[in-house]
Amino acid sequence: MRYAVILAGGWGERLWPMSRRDRPKQLLAFVGTRTLVAETLERVAPAVTVERTVVMTSEAIRDRILPELPRVPSERVVGEPCGRNTAPAIALAAHVLFATDPDAVLAALPADHVIADTAAFRETLEIAFGAAESERALVTLGIKPTRPETEYGYIRAGEPTASRGVFHAASFEEKPDHARAKAFLDDGGYYWNSGMFIWRADRFLEDVGTHLPEVARALDGVTALPGEEGFGDQVARFYERVPSVSVDYGIMEKADDVLVVPAEFGWDDVGAWSALSRVWETDARGNAVVGPVVAVDSDDCVLYSEGETVAVLGLSGIVVARTPAGTLVCPAERARDVRLIVEELKKRGIVEDR
Amino acid sequence: MRYAVILAGGWGERLWPMSRRDRPKQLLAFVGTRTLVAETLERVAPAVTVERTVVMTSEAIRDRILPELPRVPSERVVGEPCGRNTAPAIALAAHVLFATDPDAVLAALPADHVIADTAAFRETLEIAFGAAESERALVTLGIKPTRPETEYGYIRAGEPTASRGVFHAASFEEKPDHARAKAFLDDGGYYWNSGMFIWRADRFLEDVGTHLPEVARALDGVTALPGEEGFGDQVARFYERVPSVSVDYGIMEKADDVLVVPAEFGWDDVGAWSALSRVWETDARGNAVVGPVVAVDSDDCVLYSEGETVAVLGLSGIVVARTPAGTLVCPAERARDVRLIVEELKKRGIVEDR
Repeated sequence: MRYAVILAGGWGERLWPMSRRDRPKQLLAFVGTRTLVAETLERVAPAVTVERTVVMTSEAIRDRILPELPRVPSERVVGEPCGRNTAPAIALAAHVLFATDPDAVLAALPADHVIADTAAFRETLEIAFGAAESERALVTLGIKPTRPETEYGYIRAGEPTASRGVFHAASFEEKPDHARAKAFLDDGGYYWNSGMFIWRADRFLEDVGTHLPEVARALDGVTALPGEEGFGDQVARFYERVPSVSVDYGIMEKADDVLVVPAEFGWDDVGAWSALSRVWETDARGNAVVGPVVAVDSDDCVLYSEGETVAVLGLSGIVVARTPAGTLVCPAERARDVRLIVEELKKRGIVEDR
Repeated sequence: MRYAVILAGGWGERLWPMSRRDRPKQLLAFVGTRTLVAETLERVAPAVTVERTVVMTSEAIRDRILPELPRVPSERVVGEPCGRNTAPAIALAAHVLFATDPDAVLAALPADHVIADTAAFRETLEIAFGAAESERALVTLGIKPTRPETEYGYIRAGEPTASRGVFHAASFEEKPDHARAKAFLDDGGYYWNSGMFIWRADRFLEDVGTHLPEVARALDGVTALPGEEGFGDQVARFYERVPSVSVDYGIMEKADDVLVVPAEFGWDDVGAWSALSRVWETDARGNAVVGPVVAVDSDDCVLYSEGETVAVLGLSGIVVARTPAGTLVCPAERARDVRLIVEELKKRGIVEDR
């Protein structure tokens, strides 16, 4: 059977001060009217009934996320005591699903991405599920690049498989510099690593055993199922034991039989403030404006305010974001480095460090 | 006798959102611990006893300004129903002083300037009072320029007078472009028009009669003295009748016998946010920082916050100012144009337009 594993941990540090630990990115509705996590669930719903969804989130926001997912059985919303990146979270979900369904196939989907074309997403997901089932492979969605982005990893597509629209992944490429990103774009055979994965639980757990033996050993300690006595304690111990590692680095770059399904469905991970000028509408001067903002003689800015007036004059390519948590100002081209600010805020105790 | 006329109208629009209509610049203590208006009074106190001070302010903030000037008789704090620039305000004060003292000599002093060297100011003021009395001239203080400022008018000093340190004013020069400002600076004989004037009330009122007859006629309607019945109504009618005109444009540029006293006492009119990097201390990277601010990779900024965290990254020469009234972001070199923002805020009803 098919399952969805929604990855809703983390808090989107680079979107501070809109996103923050107690109001993380996946709980914001900054595109459309529903929160990103609710959109993620809705998007996958036709392929996987809501009852067969597992949500991996942080314990700190679990109570906040439950109302956004009213039809997901609450025991299937698992609160992580601490963030350990994607590999342990997906492994734990796969472990739990496999325990009741040895034929479980799952789609691991980040809860904080924006996807404009839901129908195209669903078609792509169907192809990916099919490939994961028929080829028993690790399948990833590769986004057809639309710009020479240097902030994403790339996947080079190799030979086609027997399944329509599915290719062997020839290589994983780390974040390139601009020239290399440009070459990837011109080549046409490179895709953005979207962080969306589809595979059989048993196949993935084999790879965890091979490539992440510490994680596999920690999984042995999880014998209860969600909702059963002891599950919470076992999860807590699991997170104490596992290293922090991404599934890309920990598994995908090392595994055999990785397949990529090229995808075009208006995807954006909204990974930084600069992305908002893509997902929000812009005015005639290229400014993406949300909230009570006055912009004079300004171009190509991202201007966001909750409540109070933000007024800018003579700016070009600057992000200004003001919320009750604070005000951020930086050039759009430095938006990826907002983490430096968050680090400093943590040092000063202004942002909680956990 | 000598009198002080403190000009405390206006609200310092270009320092929005620190300064605003209900918390104008002269009521801020952004340098030192006392408000600028209290500092202005204290600075002139040895030359002119507090009882012989007249304060011209706006009716809207009169109640707010009184506690800052506890020893000034409250009837001598005159609330203007609307702003009409400096000429009507000084004319009304001169008219009132002349009515009880035909030999009144007054120093008209803006309440929102910063002066670092009080002793030097007092010495200069003494020279100016002496010249106004002995020469019966219109005397202005000319600030020795320290940079090729394009935002001030300049006064060219001509022949020296018989009084030590006092020169005839050869010409008034409008705000120059940068090249001309540079030439003025290099020449050494040009001074910034400080907006500080010293003259006999009768002499000034003669010039008002000659150059601003509408103002002179409106003065005829003011027959009561401060504190007497009818004074408030007469003042209101006066302001209804007079045009808005500066004393520089309306009188100084047209009058004969204008004298200038060159002055060096650490003067700054703090006319825009960019000035704060001169009057506030700056850090090793040239940032003037006041309040809870985190600056990463940033240089030569003015960063101001009341209460909430302001975090900036990768900025150079940018003003960021956040108060409960709003947030301003602009390049320091555009700070003079903050009025454009205030105009827009007035149009939108966010800032009161009166």
